[in-house]
Amino acid sequence: MITVALAKGALLKDSVARFATAGLDFSDVLDPDNRQLMVPSKCGSARALLVRNGDVPVYVAYGQAQLGVVGYDVLKEHQMPVAHLVDLGFGGCRMSVAVKEESIYKCAADLPPHCRIASKFTNCARDFFDSLDLPVELVHLTGSVELGPITGIAEAIVDLVATGRTLRDNGLVSIEDLFHSTARLVGHPLSLRLDRGLLQEVVDSMRT
Amino acid sequence: MITVALAKGALLKDSVARFATAGLDFSDVLDPDNRQLMVPSKCGSARALLVRNGDVPVYVAYGQAQLGVVGYDVLKEHQMPVAHLVDLGFGGCRMSVAVKEESIYKCAADLPPHCRIASKFTNCARDFFDSLDLPVELVHLTGSVELGPITGIAEAIVDLVATGRTLRDNGLVSIEDLFHSTARLVGHPLSLRLDRGLLQEVVDSMRT
Repeated sequence: MITVALAKGALLKDSVARFATAGLDFSDVLDPDNRQLMVPSKCGSARALLVRNGDVPVYVAYGQAQLGVVGYDVLKEHQMPVAHLVDLGFGGCRMSVAVKEESIYKCAADLPPHCRIASKFTNCARDFFDSLDLPVELVHLTGSVELGPITGIAEAIVDLVATGRTLRDNGLVSIEDLFHSTARLVGHPLSLRLDRGLLQEVVDSMRT
Repeated sequence: MITVALAKGALLKDSVARFATAGLDFSDVLDPDNRQLMVPSKCGSARALLVRNGDVPVYVAYGQAQLGVVGYDVLKEHQMPVAHLVDLGFGGCRMSVAVKEESIYKCAADLPPHCRIASKFTNCARDFFDSLDLPVELVHLTGSVELGPITGIAEAIVDLVATGRTLRDNGLVSIEDLFHSTARLVGHPLSLRLDRGLLQEVVDSMRT
């Protein structure tokens, strides 16, 4: 039985559609009345675990799920030992540095040394500012990072930007991108090595 | 202007009620149509920041909010430098170790050494199992921790239990409590030291 970890939220609908092309019908997870976290596929030969974004690589790394779909942003932030298999293309967004619209800073290197940066993605932010040789103080927030510059807890934020609406609504503007992110199919390395063709078939179908 | 950090979710309604007894009316944050994260009090002399549970001690520690209301569980997990002022009494719940109903483990010390424990509160869990001299492997999950024993990623979980319904619905049972948690009023230490009476008045009103 193949177990697949799917992230609740923005990536779910497209993830289900892509597994359908591989013959695995997880459409029951899209039912708004569904309260189950472990949902069998219609054919009965697989099941989906409905978990939070950040938990997908955990379930795959421990082998509780052989496959999973999650954003590249999460993979880069948490660095769990999972195999990156397919760039699925959907869920595109950018990891960006953003400041207040009226700010004098026009790119990340303009930011003053030892300024504060608020982010949910403090590992990504640390790597990026390290690569610029710019020492900054990172403030880890778990949500509503756009409040950072408004309240003054941070001069800038590092956050995911999809349409840019949240930034605009909060008077913020993106000044530099760290990287582009899309949904990725990931796998449990040991399960892939021991696979007798079943997993590889799913992976191959999702590659096209 | 006093700024107060309030946690979205289960504690919000009671938090607003307690600040009302201190003369600060933040009832606008309870309006289901409210999308603002920074909401002025009706009297205009204070404002509320609506943030995630885990971010309340961050805003208070950095002094962006002088006061905040948050569960003791969050304070214990994140250990931010904030002053614990008042036990507000509401939002009662227990931090518990739970296992499958059919499990042979009847208390935490029964768990086998090096077993896996899934939790959102890995710092609390580490302290607890260290105090038992029981080495365990902690698996950090960000949500739906009750899936842990079901999927087999962990033998037990450490999680907040209020009514116990989530545990029962998932065939789990609590075998030991780490501590009891309630909502706490916390403050920014420097703001409290520099206070000319205004903050102290709010704190005193909320103590009764």
